[in-house]
Amino acid sequence: MLQVTVWNENRHEKTDAEVQEVYPHGIHGAIASFLEDQFQVRTATLDEPEHGLTQEVLEHTDVLIWWGHLAHHEVSDEIVARVKQRVLDGMGLIVLHSGHFSKLFKTLMGTSCDLKWREANEKERIWIVDPSHPIVEDIGEYIELEKEEMYGEHFDIPAPDQLIMVSWFEGGEVFRSGCTYQRGKGKIFYFRPGHETYPTYYHKDIQRVIKNAVQWAKPTALPKPIYGNAQPLEAIKTKQ
Amino acid sequence: MLQVTVWNENRHEKTDAEVQEVYPHGIHGAIASFLEDQFQVRTATLDEPEHGLTQEVLEHTDVLIWWGHLAHHEVSDEIVARVKQRVLDGMGLIVLHSGHFSKLFKTLMGTSCDLKWREANEKERIWIVDPSHPIVEDIGEYIELEKEEMYGEHFDIPAPDQLIMVSWFEGGEVFRSGCTYQRGKGKIFYFRPGHETYPTYYHKDIQRVIKNAVQWAKPTALPKPIYGNAQPLEAIKTKQ
Amino acid sequence: MLQVTVWNENRHEKTDAEVQEVYPHGIHGAIASFLEDQFQVRTATLDEPEHGLTQEVLEHTDVLIWWGHLAHHEVSDEIVARVKQRVLDGMGLIVLHSGHFSKLFKTLMGTSCDLKWREANEKERIWIVDPSHPIVEDIGEYIELEKEEMYGEHFDIPAPDQLIMVSWFEGGEVFRSGCTYQRGKGKIFYFRPGHETYPTYYHKDIQRVIKNAVQWAKPTALPKPIYGNAQPLEAIKTKQ
Amino acid sequence: MLQVTVWNENRHEKTDAEVQEVYPHGIHGAIASFLEDQFQVRTATLDEPEHGLTQEVLEHTDVLIWWGHLAHHEVSDEIVARVKQRVLDGMGLIVLHSGHFSKLFKTLMGTSCDLKWREANEKERIWIVDPSHPIVEDIGEYIELEKEEMYGEHFDIPAPDQLIMVSWFEGGEVFRSGCTYQRGKGKIFYFRPGHETYPTYYHKDIQRVIKNAVQWAKPTALPKPIYGNAQPLEAIKTKQ
Repeated sequence: MLQVTVWNENRHEKTDAEVQEVYPHGIHGAIASFLEDQFQVRTATLDEPEHGLTQEVLEHTDVLIWWGHLAHHEVSDEIVARVKQRVLDGMGLIVLHSGHFSKLFKTLMGTSCDLKWREANEKERIWIVDPSHPIVEDIGEYIELEKEEMYGEHFDIPAPDQLIMVSWFEGGEVFRSGCTYQRGKGKIFYFRPGHETYPTYYHKDIQRVIKNAVQWAKPTALPKPIYGNAQPLEAIKTKQ
Repeated sequence: MLQVTVWNENRHEKTDAEVQEVYPHGIHGAIASFLEDQFQVRTATLDEPEHGLTQEVLEHTDVLIWWGHLAHHEVSDEIVARVKQRVLDGMGLIVLHSGHFSKLFKTLMGTSCDLKWREANEKERIWIVDPSHPIVEDIGEYIELEKEEMYGEHFDIPAPDQLIMVSWFEGGEVFRSGCTYQRGKGKIFYFRPGHETYPTYYHKDIQRVIKNAVQWAKPTALPKPIYGNAQPLEAIKTKQ
Repeated sequence: MLQVTVWNENRHEKTDAEVQEVYPHGIHGAIASFLEDQFQVRTATLDEPEHGLTQEVLEHTDVLIWWGHLAHHEVSDEIVARVKQRVLDGMGLIVLHSGHFSKLFKTLMGTSCDLKWREANEKERIWIVDPSHPIVEDIGEYIELEKEEMYGEHFDIPAPDQLIMVSWFEGGEVFRSGCTYQRGKGKIFYFRPGHETYPTYYHKDIQRVIKNAVQWAKPTALPKPIYGNAQPLEAIKTKQ
Repeated sequence: MLQVTVWNENRHEKTDAEVQEVYPHGIHGAIASFLEDQFQVRTATLDEPEHGLTQEVLEHTDVLIWWGHLAHHEVSDEIVARVKQRVLDGMGLIVLHSGHFSKLFKTLMGTSCDLKWREANEKERIWIVDPSHPIVEDIGEYIELEKEEMYGEHFDIPAPDQLIMVSWFEGGEVFRSGCTYQRGKGKIFYFRPGHETYPTYYHKDIQRVIKNAVQWAKPTALPKPIYGNAQPLEAIKTKQ
């Protein structure tokens, strides 16, 4: 059974009554609860020691889910480096919504990961542009969210390895909302929706995409490549 | 259980004693035999009615494996069109070795699919360049084949969606040997090795790659996208 | 000076008064006229002998622009094969709007190239998603077209090598509107806008994109790769 | 005229007689000298104040070429951040050979950029796998270097946006030797050859590739995308 760790900053939930009402057990709690029937799930949050991401936890994590917003700068550089190394070593990573601006995602992308945004209770329609991809298994042509925060292009990311979803927003913008990347032995999926004041993570299609993404992002078992000085595999002619 | 159809031209096996000795049950037989413990496998060959690829067979095929060489021109255009449509509708396709020049692969790629080749009993070393990909699960850093036919660049294919393996040849060439493509709802994997006079399909790593590729290429269950004239989903302002 | 051939089906212009009013010299005439200050331009249309695309014309064409709609089926297979070969040999190709359904584009893509569409005088906003690309030189964040035909996802194309533009439509859809592909030695750019009843090709940003695309798609001068049987470049050890 | 800055660590040249003999004016001097007929060229080296990469120099640099090896750790984080920002803002970047391990390249890639290597005076043959790309203009099917350092896969980089060249090495390895990336408004080209003890940068095809790459990597003129909070472009229906 795949081991999933759901990491959440968990700050809005402590201070904002509106968010508490939508996510009484935290965003991590909501995400964990729909994953539990298929995966072995634990949660971790910013205010735990080592942000709940000890070396041991990471070694027992096949896929890490990341939600952060207010406190990206409070995540320690040491933990970011540790998690990044685990991704390069094969752990899957699913970055949700405002996690686009996390230190972790930025250091794996190499770009600013900046974007346009607006909180205006507007409609989002997430269109599937790659119907062959296992991440959209059992999804229809699009997912419609009555009210969401807008994220708009230009989204300053590297060109995705695979672009799976593109969002339409009522206010006139578009956004590359479902993007995959390979980094080292690890697979990364960025998925846009999930503002803290909306019940997005209770939407069955959103849940299904995240479940599919966990399956897709699971580690591939093969030996770590050997780096550094290498003996020749074939004879080399002696030259002056 | 995934349903796999192994299609083989099966001509070398009828006329060439050297090939008969290596593949007494045909290349299709050899491939089917290592897939049977994991998948529901059938075979089909060129000289069967409709090349063994009736509409019914295709409808019961999740992933089709294709080996052809001498008789690409004998495959009927009608069957090629039928198989292509099934790929666009979601059936996975694994094209092996000289299948690069099949009508089916060429029509799905849009290019000549031409390449350099040489039969000289030379060594091939297939290097993994994407260790995150499920198609190389349980493979090491490379697969070494003591004797194979050489295929060399330039290989006239579209840039692969994902490049997974690159071959080194003793005679001085390289080749993009493991390439994935998405076409419609279908996933395609091209895998280079497998000349008819060598026991390549008995090599456990080659077998493992093909098994992994079947898993990777399986159809994604979601409704076929709706094409054609579409009613608006949002109100459009009347304009002159 | 780059040699550009603008090919147009030129049928709407002969029969439809509304189109005649918008494009009195044909869509080809409109496109040719804004290219003429930078390039050596000729036009060709469906009803000319060999559709105006003789071997000689193609040999003197660096970049071909293609607009068609009503009469894709009237384009002869022989001419399509000839033009495709020139693309593989290095000629650039810019496919506009309803050219998505031309035999030429479909045979180069390997997919159905189908999509959603609607004629409802609706607003299109074409967002730039790759601001590093020379095809969007001198364009702003988006191009706005007050009235256009809608094209919506899913657009059944292979994943573009580079996705440069994504459209937002008033009626609720999105579309991958600026896509590049490499086929053989040739470069291809698909650009969505340009319904025959709208003055889209008079819009300065649309003109600028097409000019930029001509520059981008120009042939790269290097020898045609050598295909077929090849002598080894290195000594091969004799094996049994 | 494009403004090119050639940056070189310039340490081997100060201490190693063998390198001094091959590159008496430094690697930067050798590279600058073949670029000067086409571009406005300056050089900069590690031991200059701010490594020669002041804000002013960068603002007058369209394309930066980077060679480093021994002293990657001596490049200050502040200068790395400054150069990275210029790349995201549109400056082209060409990273040569051992520059794969520079802080700059690693921070733009998000991976370890590690690889196999060997100094054994062995033959390298760089095959062109994308003959449509302007970076290989006027190059043949391959570039042969009689003696070079070996770099072998796995090369821990993100999947290149475009893979243009793949190297064959006498000792049995392959390598993705010509790779492009887009980051922000900037274009990046990694080019493998150029060990300090070999006359690689005097080879006319290597020179031609670097010249072509400068042209390809030049900035695209368009306004910097606007990020942050954004007003709607369309009316949004009021919702509870």
